[in-house]
Amino acid sequence: MLSSMDNPTRSASGLEGPSGEHFSISEPPAQLRQPMHVPKRLLLGPGPANASPRVLQAGSLQLLGHLHPEFCQIMDEVRAGIKYALQTDSRWALAVSGTGHAAMEAALGNLLEDGERVLIASHGIWGQRASDIADRLGADVCIMPKDAGKYFSLCDIEKGLLENQPILFFITHGESSTGVLQPLDGIGELCHRHGCLLLVDSVAALGGVPLYMDAQEIDVLYTGSQKVLSCPPGPSPIAFSERAWDKIINRKSRIPSFYFDMTWLANYWGCDGEARRYHHTGPITGVYMLREGLAGLAEETLEKCWSRHAASAKRLHVGLQRLGLELFVQDEVARLPTVTTVCVPPDYAWKEVTDYLMTKHNIEISGGLGPTAGKVWRIGLMGYNSTAENVDKVLNALQDALTKCRHSKL
Amino acid sequence: MLSSMDNPTRSASGLEGPSGEHFSISEPPAQLRQPMHVPKRLLLGPGPANASPRVLQAGSLQLLGHLHPEFCQIMDEVRAGIKYALQTDSRWALAVSGTGHAAMEAALGNLLEDGERVLIASHGIWGQRASDIADRLGADVCIMPKDAGKYFSLCDIEKGLLENQPILFFITHGESSTGVLQPLDGIGELCHRHGCLLLVDSVAALGGVPLYMDAQEIDVLYTGSQKVLSCPPGPSPIAFSERAWDKIINRKSRIPSFYFDMTWLANYWGCDGEARRYHHTGPITGVYMLREGLAGLAEETLEKCWSRHAASAKRLHVGLQRLGLELFVQDEVARLPTVTTVCVPPDYAWKEVTDYLMTKHNIEISGGLGPTAGKVWRIGLMGYNSTAENVDKVLNALQDALTKCRHSKL
Repeated sequence: MLSSMDNPTRSASGLEGPSGEHFSISEPPAQLRQPMHVPKRLLLGPGPANASPRVLQAGSLQLLGHLHPEFCQIMDEVRAGIKYALQTDSRWALAVSGTGHAAMEAALGNLLEDGERVLIASHGIWGQRASDIADRLGADVCIMPKDAGKYFSLCDIEKGLLENQPILFFITHGESSTGVLQPLDGIGELCHRHGCLLLVDSVAALGGVPLYMDAQEIDVLYTGSQKVLSCPPGPSPIAFSERAWDKIINRKSRIPSFYFDMTWLANYWGCDGEARRYHHTGPITGVYMLREGLAGLAEETLEKCWSRHAASAKRLHVGLQRLGLELFVQDEVARLPTVTTVCVPPDYAWKEVTDYLMTKHNIEISGGLGPTAGKVWRIGLMGYNSTAENVDKVLNALQDALTKCRHSKL
Repeated sequence: MLSSMDNPTRSASGLEGPSGEHFSISEPPAQLRQPMHVPKRLLLGPGPANASPRVLQAGSLQLLGHLHPEFCQIMDEVRAGIKYALQTDSRWALAVSGTGHAAMEAALGNLLEDGERVLIASHGIWGQRASDIADRLGADVCIMPKDAGKYFSLCDIEKGLLENQPILFFITHGESSTGVLQPLDGIGELCHRHGCLLLVDSVAALGGVPLYMDAQEIDVLYTGSQKVLSCPPGPSPIAFSERAWDKIINRKSRIPSFYFDMTWLANYWGCDGEARRYHHTGPITGVYMLREGLAGLAEETLEKCWSRHAASAKRLHVGLQRLGLELFVQDEVARLPTVTTVCVPPDYAWKEVTDYLMTKHNIEISGGLGPTAGKVWRIGLMGYNSTAENVDKVLNALQDALTKCRHSKL
């Protein structure tokens, strides 16, 4: 217990110091005296996925200073890896010092000014999140909804752009809450024809399906580290087209966040060719690990990584259907290979099955989220985890669970 | 090189996919095919300090899900460790998913609403940073300056409060840019008497000097992970008094950031006693490492950690004076034990000396920052690095440098 200021006689520390020497000190917590318990587990939910061995190894390397030349070299390697992963030549590519939501907030916060109109394609939770963030930023938020399990056509999008006249259009590439892969071809061109910038969230899809930032005319693109890149949740890759960059540097008002201010971050990451200035202390270990995740992707190559994800997803889908399960996304081309949504059959309680897999098979799969809550299971096959062996493991475990957890009535 | 959309014949991938199959793919970057280069180095600048072995070991543990019970248990342990380190019983204690600047932004962003007045005590770079962030948030920012190397008296502060009538007062406990330790006794009481909340930045001081959040009536307190806690720059501890929490939950406007929204974060961290909801994907590895840093502090105990930092700093100060160097902070009680500022003598170029230490002795010390740029060297002795052995190493290295880098004229 801490003493109060009117009870200085309770002091027992006897410390000499510049202040506070008349207060007593509470005891160290007993639970920190025990070793930390981190069980090994196969993470086949929508993320984080298991980190790859080379990424984990990087997690125990000693620190460097955030402006040491060797660390700047590693940042340069990360930038090269991000440009490759995103297929962009843009110099405005870097990693935000936070997880995927931080990148979403950074994207919206740098682009939007008070009262500016953003149109948000909402076909799951990520559109809702983007709307929430844009609303807090004071933007004029228009939402274009779509039923869970469906994607937007170019026709839908053109209609939305015409009706709302936004300056920014937000869409999610891999809707991990519904298992939908949103096709991106043609959207950038459409947006630009209507004087609008295109912002794409590819947290759950990048690396698992073809994506070409420049060729697809995407203005802002971000992803997360804990999905296909097989890193812990950490620094999040983001890149801006010259069009988007012009919007940022021509703002009338200040960027609302210092931590996410891209003009500072671009300097710290060496994008602007100027001498790097201290902005914040970068997450050194997170950057090491991201470097290794990106190096893994570069070694495998994007083509092979995409093919591997397509093959694992195909194997999973066929296997699930053999178990008599129905895929939530009807349209085969719209199925996200990284996160598969499976309808919970009527005679099962979804949580009983996920708990069973965790307890008996040490495998995580998850329930639905947002519009799919209670309706689906979500099975992730991302990065290091996207293998035939893991597909077979989860199918076997599911088969077992379906036998054990069936109810005649629910 | 990426193909343009009007040149589909350049495609060489032959991939089948839902989109983009007519674009060619740029090559993986050669620099990611090389192993990552991370030299070992003694980090005696103002941070990051070297991480402790137990912290580094935690960096390579496999991931858990961000809502798995075992991970929630680790979060609970982190909260207990934060409460101990900050000497608070407040339930509103957690770690923000970003480095120290993120905690600063989270503190100001949750507390301040548009047009509300904040008084910022500025005796170095951190006051300037807080002013910058508060200004972006739309607050009415008043700055109370103080010369570099000095600290604020209770008299100064009361005068500032009377003149400006702020609802929030910001002050930096460990001014790492000047090497000043700001005494905190009495400030909380003073602020409360004047109807104002007290926000303290203790990024560079916490764990190195006595600090008692509750007894000293601090309303918001945050720190960084990469200083005394001997972790990588990562999730940053923060805590709020009930008074501060009341201010947050009674806001008229929304908290401007979703990522830093304390009402969501407090739920995710289990502070509010409600079932934990998904907010964002927490930085799993960063939380493991912070847990180990806090556990190291709990094992040593605060009293011993404070004493160790006092002893190392004393040894350094005496040694520096024996080398004929002058300490920048004149007042002995105002010297920050974690970061010592040393005046650069007239016949030396500061950077030549720091470069020499790095090149010949593999030791980082740094130059000044903000108001001390060009005037001082900064030597950090924080956490794992705060030992007599390291003091002797840096003193020997400095002695060598002072011999080698002297100029008759500059």
